[in-house]
Amino acid sequence: MNHPELLSNSLSHEQLDTQVILQHVVNAWKQLQTQQPLVQCITNIVAANYAANILLAAGASPAMVDNPFEAESFTTISGALSINVGTPHTEQMQAMRISAQTAQRTDTPWVLDPVGYGAVLPWRTEMVNELLTYKPTVIRGNASEISTLAGDQNVESKGVDSTLKSADVYEHAKVLLEHCECVAISGESDYIISKEYNAVIQVNGGSHLQPKVTATGCALGALTAAYCAVTTPTIACIAAHVHFAIAGKLAFQKAQTVGSFNVAFLDHVHGLTDETIEQYGDVQVLT
Amino acid sequence: MNHPELLSNSLSHEQLDTQVILQHVVNAWKQLQTQQPLVQCITNIVAANYAANILLAAGASPAMVDNPFEAESFTTISGALSINVGTPHTEQMQAMRISAQTAQRTDTPWVLDPVGYGAVLPWRTEMVNELLTYKPTVIRGNASEISTLAGDQNVESKGVDSTLKSADVYEHAKVLLEHCECVAISGESDYIISKEYNAVIQVNGGSHLQPKVTATGCALGALTAAYCAVTTPTIACIAAHVHFAIAGKLAFQKAQTVGSFNVAFLDHVHGLTDETIEQYGDVQVLT
Amino acid sequence: MNHPELLSNSLSHEQLDTQVILQHVVNAWKQLQTQQPLVQCITNIVAANYAANILLAAGASPAMVDNPFEAESFTTISGALSINVGTPHTEQMQAMRISAQTAQRTDTPWVLDPVGYGAVLPWRTEMVNELLTYKPTVIRGNASEISTLAGDQNVESKGVDSTLKSADVYEHAKVLLEHCECVAISGESDYIISKEYNAVIQVNGGSHLQPKVTATGCALGALTAAYCAVTTPTIACIAAHVHFAIAGKLAFQKAQTVGSFNVAFLDHVHGLTDETIEQYGDVQVLT
Repeated sequence: MNHPELLSNSLSHEQLDTQVILQHVVNAWKQLQTQQPLVQCITNIVAANYAANILLAAGASPAMVDNPFEAESFTTISGALSINVGTPHTEQMQAMRISAQTAQRTDTPWVLDPVGYGAVLPWRTEMVNELLTYKPTVIRGNASEISTLAGDQNVESKGVDSTLKSADVYEHAKVLLEHCECVAISGESDYIISKEYNAVIQVNGGSHLQPKVTATGCALGALTAAYCAVTTPTIACIAAHVHFAIAGKLAFQKAQTVGSFNVAFLDHVHGLTDETIEQYGDVQVLT
Repeated sequence: MNHPELLSNSLSHEQLDTQVILQHVVNAWKQLQTQQPLVQCITNIVAANYAANILLAAGASPAMVDNPFEAESFTTISGALSINVGTPHTEQMQAMRISAQTAQRTDTPWVLDPVGYGAVLPWRTEMVNELLTYKPTVIRGNASEISTLAGDQNVESKGVDSTLKSADVYEHAKVLLEHCECVAISGESDYIISKEYNAVIQVNGGSHLQPKVTATGCALGALTAAYCAVTTPTIACIAAHVHFAIAGKLAFQKAQTVGSFNVAFLDHVHGLTDETIEQYGDVQVLT
Repeated sequence: MNHPELLSNSLSHEQLDTQVILQHVVNAWKQLQTQQPLVQCITNIVAANYAANILLAAGASPAMVDNPFEAESFTTISGALSINVGTPHTEQMQAMRISAQTAQRTDTPWVLDPVGYGAVLPWRTEMVNELLTYKPTVIRGNASEISTLAGDQNVESKGVDSTLKSADVYEHAKVLLEHCECVAISGESDYIISKEYNAVIQVNGGSHLQPKVTATGCALGALTAAYCAVTTPTIACIAAHVHFAIAGKLAFQKAQTVGSFNVAFLDHVHGLTDETIEQYGDVQVLT
């Protein structure tokens, strides 16, 4: 069952299909358990505790270092970086700039989560525009954020929640590959747009209760960064989204109310196995 | 069962009684589910995650935008604003001022939660005094905070916990109606002081475990703001407090230890129905 | 069973053994319930909510006052102070300095948690070095942090997680008693180094899942501060670590997955009794 050769970086000419992808996910998940990579998270006050718990449960080692005086040295030793602009203040914004620049310079993979991107939140939007120039490995967001980032001027803002469907956005979002290796759009189904494979991978699963738990998207961005520390960007995105989709699906089988669901979700993020990946992983290659 | 006419703003001459109030609460709760209002929360690092989860569970759409560079534009599109001075820093304080001024200017309902108000915490106390001039829709706090805010110089401070009983404070607290439409005092019983009805409404229920869960008061302030986006200030205060009182009562029936209680509490905040409101809502009009 | 005389400060000549220690812990825990001391916590955005919930569940009254404009007056009325340098920013660092100075001046016990101390995080490391001059009552950390603080230059940094075992560090860590009354090192077993007794006390228990829940160490520092408000530094350290060790052990008996474990852990932090202390408390005096 184990195909370590699939972890090589020269996947470009490989034919992706569901079985191949799930085997990559299994390997990425095993690498995450083995390497327990250090993941620097610059994130918001809503997500900080939750994202740290998700990363620990998934097998990574999170550290929320978000001040400008330690950003450079800490990014240098980190396996990956996650930047989330949810509740910025001036010093944290400075840390984002320094860490993103450092990640680019040191070839450290990093994920950009443009929470609330759009005209109503101009400060972070300007910062996200600057951060794009430091070439994130992955851009991850909900459909409204990604669509606005991709140039759609007509997205109605509802704070940090999406007013669009991910299925309606992914075609348009391909333009964002000029900035990054992968774009990941979360929603009822998730869509991973891969530059390497010139493909869109759809990930199904999860539960309608996930958007009822705050910071699940933010934590998914942090988990994507964790996987980026151990595998290629495309597989990292797919693995993180499959990890969440399976945990959400199994959690909902156990608990149908939002507080209990959230506890069960953390249980299943921690309890993922190669068997559950192979049994419940639901991905398909669209293009 | 549905009396949409009760949602009108011209309630002043209506006779309030328990049945009328509970019908208003049912309608307000239904409006919350339908409208899912965007609620801007400027809150503390203890409450941020919890308040967001409570608002999502209750049906609203929270966003913790708390920087001064986005405060004005974001308040403008928000259905309501919640300001909580729990763990302020300079930029957040600036955001509070800007958002409160914007809310006043744009007639956006807003709730002020004066956490820790008193001489031992002079910085926030001065800020709260300034914020009062921007006319909050609702002032919400525990008995110590409300009593001190109402001019009592002899309240012993114990940080952010109350040393007084809500039942001993509400008479004195009526002076605060010069600043706002409603005053809400949480405690073993909650007391809502309404300018519109010239009445005090007592809300019973909850559990003695609620004060053992941090940030329940902060989250109640945020929920009050959410209801303010969909109904009148008085009904919003009552609805938020009834919502919490029922969820606390039912959660305690399911779980008598503090960690499990908190999970069950979130379940029941999410699981409220018109039936549970009518069956468990326990309110009485005092004056 | 009750030996109130053991609470006196003149314990220096007493012979410590397991039974004597557990009786002290019982008394300290009872004092915590009775006095419910106000504990000021200057802590990080990951731990703030969790540490507050742990303190409330354990019987204390937490307040996360962390701005420099209120730090002095608030420390003055607090029963104890907990300083944790996990996610500092400039104003919070100023608050740490002021509160530590105030605690030293007013003989308020205080706990220093040097999260991530080491060359990769120079800003906090410099601040911790300064804070040591204000004589913390207790220094608490994981094995990597404590070993580095004690002068070991060769500790490999992995963010905020430890790369060393607590059992390998405590001998070396005794040098830190020049700064404080007690050093507490958490790990698979915990080690309390007491100046007063010239002894090392080993605390066993807990669960391997505890490091999988973020901020348990930070919360343990805050709980140590809470106990410092009601008993001597050595007993406070032991009591806090025994409290966590028993809660972790009993929680794991109830729940073996990380989300459910965390809920059960909070239940058992709240549900500690003199019986469970006497039955499950596992301490031994090493020197």
